[in-house]
Amino acid sequence: MEVQGFKAGAVSANIKYQGRLDLGIILSSVSSVTGAVFTKNIVKAAPVLDGIELLSKGRSFRAIVVNSGNANACTGERGLSDCLKIRQETAKALGIEPHEVLVASTGVIGAYLPMDRYLDGIKEASQKLSEEGLLAVSEAILTTDTRNKVAMREVEIEGTLVKVFGMAKGAGMISPSMGPPQATMLSFILTDAYVDEEYWQEIIERCVELTFNRITVDGDMSTNDTVIGMANGLARNRVCDGQGPESKPLEDAVYDVMKSLSQQIVMDGEGATKCVTIRVTGARDEKEAELCARAISNSNLVKTAFFGEDPNWGRIIAAAGYSGAKFNPKKSVIKIGGVEIFKKGQPLDKKAEDKAKEAMKKPLFKVEVDLGAGKSAFEMLTCDLSTEYVHINADYRT
Amino acid sequence: MEVQGFKAGAVSANIKYQGRLDLGIILSSVSSVTGAVFTKNIVKAAPVLDGIELLSKGRSFRAIVVNSGNANACTGERGLSDCLKIRQETAKALGIEPHEVLVASTGVIGAYLPMDRYLDGIKEASQKLSEEGLLAVSEAILTTDTRNKVAMREVEIEGTLVKVFGMAKGAGMISPSMGPPQATMLSFILTDAYVDEEYWQEIIERCVELTFNRITVDGDMSTNDTVIGMANGLARNRVCDGQGPESKPLEDAVYDVMKSLSQQIVMDGEGATKCVTIRVTGARDEKEAELCARAISNSNLVKTAFFGEDPNWGRIIAAAGYSGAKFNPKKSVIKIGGVEIFKKGQPLDKKAEDKAKEAMKKPLFKVEVDLGAGKSAFEMLTCDLSTEYVHINADYRT
Repeated sequence: MEVQGFKAGAVSANIKYQGRLDLGIILSSVSSVTGAVFTKNIVKAAPVLDGIELLSKGRSFRAIVVNSGNANACTGERGLSDCLKIRQETAKALGIEPHEVLVASTGVIGAYLPMDRYLDGIKEASQKLSEEGLLAVSEAILTTDTRNKVAMREVEIEGTLVKVFGMAKGAGMISPSMGPPQATMLSFILTDAYVDEEYWQEIIERCVELTFNRITVDGDMSTNDTVIGMANGLARNRVCDGQGPESKPLEDAVYDVMKSLSQQIVMDGEGATKCVTIRVTGARDEKEAELCARAISNSNLVKTAFFGEDPNWGRIIAAAGYSGAKFNPKKSVIKIGGVEIFKKGQPLDKKAEDKAKEAMKKPLFKVEVDLGAGKSAFEMLTCDLSTEYVHINADYRT
Repeated sequence: MEVQGFKAGAVSANIKYQGRLDLGIILSSVSSVTGAVFTKNIVKAAPVLDGIELLSKGRSFRAIVVNSGNANACTGERGLSDCLKIRQETAKALGIEPHEVLVASTGVIGAYLPMDRYLDGIKEASQKLSEEGLLAVSEAILTTDTRNKVAMREVEIEGTLVKVFGMAKGAGMISPSMGPPQATMLSFILTDAYVDEEYWQEIIERCVELTFNRITVDGDMSTNDTVIGMANGLARNRVCDGQGPESKPLEDAVYDVMKSLSQQIVMDGEGATKCVTIRVTGARDEKEAELCARAISNSNLVKTAFFGEDPNWGRIIAAAGYSGAKFNPKKSVIKIGGVEIFKKGQPLDKKAEDKAKEAMKKPLFKVEVDLGAGKSAFEMLTCDLSTEYVHINADYRT
């Protein structure tokens, strides 16, 4: 898991807990073309506000510094000045400029950062940077996640090998709203591809929209969601600018990496035991297909039924019915795990339900809802709602 | 709990479970002015479709027959003909006409009614009608509810005593969408008041909008939600038609009864241990106040924090932030149990949080969010999300 030109390192800065990796630095040896999307939540954490401001001024960055355990959100002016201080100290330690550093934070909302420990952590981490350090950073960003999430793709661009690496964290407070630019958790995409600045931002936005923005764990949208993509150009491929055939492999690779990370997030959703694809077809238009897929994906009753391995299609059709999509239940079909269990407004036989129940015992399965009202489709990835989700979130802060 | 002219009775028809009351009949001795609102879910149960059809033709009814254990939803043509058969047999047993009977059902979606047992139950129940029978019916309509829900108000209308009685059921799949006419569960309002037909429908719609439509348990809207109001006029008060001073006491009484039933529903929400009022003020307009109150009320992260008695205002402000309401977090204030814990974009001291935590130990408390953006307000009633909710809904059918 290395990408030429990128070094990384992580340390235990004891930001919230003792003795676990919670602060990481990623450094590119040269200036990197950088694209990013941030949460659309009105309440934006300090590093998000800071990042939006920086990116409005320029697209060249060298480093990312990231911590878990504290979101630095709802921390007012002090949160913003802490963020600036972090950039300054990171720049000093790395021998670069403060405006070349992006900050990302995740964790509890509404607590000030323990700046002494944070700044010590920056010094320590900057001494530990290595080409193998990306995995350590992928661990340092975790909160309620139970495992780190990384993905790598290698593609050829007109004979030149290019690498796209991604890491992500996210297990709860996962639900994008619609429409780019926007993200849903923390993810850093690193590539040695040579890419045009505007096109790189477009790739990030488009791929986020098709991947991270189509997953949900609990329907809650975070204050800190951030996706940052850095492309340092060291592969020296012909520049990808979206015009020629050299661009598609890069965009495909970014999509693949984000898609893999999205799936990893849902599979590691807080308390999740099932990862379920919700595919809605036959909608009048894509907007209605999306409304319907999101309503089913976010229904607590549907998600508890998944947990109970109960092919309770009644809850699925009820959620479709209040989603805002227009359809006639008499023309709708529902399949679970490929098994038809609802058709023409009425239930099928007990045997079908038993087969569907069998399919739901797997950790991954698919729910297909054909509304029978048109030709548009939309797909979401969701997980079940378990007692463990409640335990995790009732006890998270205390 | 009696209202002159109304008799009722309930029996065990073994519709889903053995030996519990699950079928009830309410009969008015004279033709009653009837108003009703039904679910806005596109997927409507057979009795809802049947009721909408009947009410489009006339507003005079004599009886309600209701069952729990089976929603008669997604049951196609057979569900509708079962519904008609129920009206015919009830009418025969009571000596009235089929078009004077309204049917309501609640329970599992997608199973056909056990008609033999149902029709036997009708015969048996019609033999048991008495003025004291309303409480038995209020028990027969329960599903995952742990207790029956009734309320009574007596008011004077220009010297004439009038009674308004209400019963309701509902514990899960509770979340109205916006805008009348629409309901959220089963509720029957019975009064001996003499009231104009159109005005009675208006009262029902207005009061539902202010009460049942402002509660949520799990954000899921049912296929069977039904509120029926019957007014038999036997109190012989001057007719209430919304024009004179005699109308307000009646409307107030209906509001009070529905408000009490709404609170009882939330307090008996599936697995709920807390009943929480969410009051949003300072919104730019009522629409945004409502969006914000609903987002907070339906947030799984907020609701699990209530369960954990954790004054996690970060989740509250995050939900406000993605609700669609526009505001500046720096001008917002959050109080829990009357204690200010967030102001001017940053946390207050630990002492305030401890006090708020203390307030959250009570079964009822209030969360106040002042957005600081305008003058509009909206209030919702919600409950916490507990491990028990998941148990109930993962195991409901199986």
